[in-house]
Amino acid sequence: MVDTSGIKTSRRGFIRAGLAAGGAIATAGVARAAGDPAITELQPWMQQLGEGVDAAPYGMPSPFEANVKRRTVPWLTADPISSINFTPLHEMDGIITPNGLCFERHHGGVAAVDPAKHRLMINGLVDRELVFTMEDLMRFPRENHVYFLECAANSGMEWRGAQLNGCQFTHGMIHNVMYTGVPLRLLLEEAGVKPAGTWLLAEGADASGMTRSIPMEKALDDCLVAFKMNGEALRPEQGYPLRLVVPGWEGNMWIKWLRRFEVGDQPWEQREETSKYTDLMPDGRARKFTWAMDAKSVITNPSPQAPITHTKGPTVLTGVAWSGHGTIPRVDVTIDGGKNWHEARISGPSLDKSMHRFYFEFDWDGSALLLQSRAHDSTGYVQPTKNELRKIRGLNSIYHNNGIQTWYVNEKGEAENVEIS
Amino acid sequence: MVDTSGIKTSRRGFIRAGLAAGGAIATAGVARAAGDPAITELQPWMQQLGEGVDAAPYGMPSPFEANVKRRTVPWLTADPISSINFTPLHEMDGIITPNGLCFERHHGGVAAVDPAKHRLMINGLVDRELVFTMEDLMRFPRENHVYFLECAANSGMEWRGAQLNGCQFTHGMIHNVMYTGVPLRLLLEEAGVKPAGTWLLAEGADASGMTRSIPMEKALDDCLVAFKMNGEALRPEQGYPLRLVVPGWEGNMWIKWLRRFEVGDQPWEQREETSKYTDLMPDGRARKFTWAMDAKSVITNPSPQAPITHTKGPTVLTGVAWSGHGTIPRVDVTIDGGKNWHEARISGPSLDKSMHRFYFEFDWDGSALLLQSRAHDSTGYVQPTKNELRKIRGLNSIYHNNGIQTWYVNEKGEAENVEIS
Repeated sequence: MVDTSGIKTSRRGFIRAGLAAGGAIATAGVARAAGDPAITELQPWMQQLGEGVDAAPYGMPSPFEANVKRRTVPWLTADPISSINFTPLHEMDGIITPNGLCFERHHGGVAAVDPAKHRLMINGLVDRELVFTMEDLMRFPRENHVYFLECAANSGMEWRGAQLNGCQFTHGMIHNVMYTGVPLRLLLEEAGVKPAGTWLLAEGADASGMTRSIPMEKALDDCLVAFKMNGEALRPEQGYPLRLVVPGWEGNMWIKWLRRFEVGDQPWEQREETSKYTDLMPDGRARKFTWAMDAKSVITNPSPQAPITHTKGPTVLTGVAWSGHGTIPRVDVTIDGGKNWHEARISGPSLDKSMHRFYFEFDWDGSALLLQSRAHDSTGYVQPTKNELRKIRGLNSIYHNNGIQTWYVNEKGEAENVEIS
Repeated sequence: MVDTSGIKTSRRGFIRAGLAAGGAIATAGVARAAGDPAITELQPWMQQLGEGVDAAPYGMPSPFEANVKRRTVPWLTADPISSINFTPLHEMDGIITPNGLCFERHHGGVAAVDPAKHRLMINGLVDRELVFTMEDLMRFPRENHVYFLECAANSGMEWRGAQLNGCQFTHGMIHNVMYTGVPLRLLLEEAGVKPAGTWLLAEGADASGMTRSIPMEKALDDCLVAFKMNGEALRPEQGYPLRLVVPGWEGNMWIKWLRRFEVGDQPWEQREETSKYTDLMPDGRARKFTWAMDAKSVITNPSPQAPITHTKGPTVLTGVAWSGHGTIPRVDVTIDGGKNWHEARISGPSLDKSMHRFYFEFDWDGSALLLQSRAHDSTGYVQPTKNELRKIRGLNSIYHNNGIQTWYVNEKGEAENVEIS
């Protein structure tokens, strides 16, 4: 039994319940003996021919998966044109986010760009000011990398306590796809950066005119000018036909509908790097240029939108972890609010600055649970608690909350967003 | 100059042309100087707000990408319900196939399965005959792997010479996605395979009642009972809600709409492993149980559907390679019909039994080219020529053609499917 009197829930209530201890991997007994009438029943799809190969030149999910979708929180912003929707992490598995489910964040809506008329310009402190068509860019060497993109405001509502009830809303401003693009370094070499050129301004072609300053060191290191995601063209809402990929750094810098790089000798102090996307500290000052996304994880199942639907016995817990500083060699999981930690099993490729998938299989005894996960990254950094972050950053922050998330699961298997004080 | 008198084209004609020699990676001079009016023109998408985040709960490609789609060859089969469509390899990059573009092959159309009513049964030579609901399966440990799936008939038309004019049609019966599923081994352990149980029959729930025999050794090795592809539920045309994954082996064995495994002591000699999916040898006998897909590669760009659209200068050649026996440590490329071979650059994760992406950047001198690629796999096997295969297999085969593909590119950059005799 764990004292649950200090648990703050997303309903601002308190919970009292016994908590189960973890168990070893166990699967025996999950299946039922033959005799289930559904196996002998002839289903309609066994007796009728289905649609042919000419029915859907571009395929879509099953109608039974209609619930698997990006969701908005209408009260969060004044207008959907400058707003957010969220990736349904609780409906997903593995590490790849399918393009149709990648969360969106726009500042002037989705620009509908004609690639034939789109240009990328490099100007400023360069030897040669250049303009590239999409076809020009296709003549440079390309690279392929799987990277996570996380909005700096992901989990931002949680600074002031457990708020939104579901990992889609608390952690769904992230996606993880394979990008194909040209190393930005090659384009800058083509233009010839002058010695004084230490900063880069990236500008989008949407109506909001998104602009962000990027240090030249990062631009020359691993940034990509990407035109494909998961094998096909970027989706319109992800910057079609061209976006900047800034591996491991906050999503706002990954300029969409990318149209221009200006090379300069200092940052431009644009709106999105001063009044927004900075960390408001307890003394009222804003800490800026905190670009890298620190190691973070979340349990996606069970979670408030994905309760346990069976009674006690073998249960799979799963979640995702990532770090803007490298790979995730280890994730710890607790089901009793931190009394006991277990090393989770990571399955799937472990790639630099990419999402990792972890699992913990346990034998649920049917009592209440307090679930948490804790990511370790390849630099040795360990994901902190929310309270550890608050000690330094206070309660006024919006951005860069990588604190440990807690789900309370009751005896019915229903889960809720809570905090352990 | 190369003698091109022996080149057989897909139009059954002959070509005479000079052939260019390869060059080093070169990109300088690709971009144009600033002054392109498109960069100073205010485009409509810069001046108008776009759609909001509530517009598309499940996203779709840009309307400008309407040409990127699966295509059929209507004369190939009598009915689209038992037919094929093809992945547009020439429009893609990286190694992930997005779910909407994965080729389809059905024998009774796309089964429209309700997952709540779907069951998986294990019967035959087992200690316990078992039935699993989808929810039951979610309680077993899962794994994530990226695997290619290639139809045994991919490139099958090419046995008799250069035929279809485009890599979508010659090589597009392949896709490469991340699967999430339960190792089949765990389900068989739950049922308890009797010592005599050396073969498995996998059965689909579609109207064609697809069945294939699988040796127990493979079933216990790396087969998965998969429910997700690229993070989301399997698409209906890929077996929603459940398909068998048989890594590295011919796609026909990857039973879709998977409903039953029967454990037996010998193969069942079903239609799809006797009259179909076997190799008709020159002596009229059929070689069966040739399941593993040997190392293969194809240049996707340039190719007949994707000509070179610029004049001479820096040019990117790209393609894909894979092997059912492991990884692809090396791909060789020639642009002069085999006079000179160059080691291509592989970019992206090199994963077991997964597609690999290769590139070769060269300075095109504007003369005609004969393009070929040759994959080496991690066992040391090297992709053979089509004629080397024909020496053993004759001309009557349909399946398992992994021969080297040749594209002829003329001075205008137009490409054609040809063979070098």
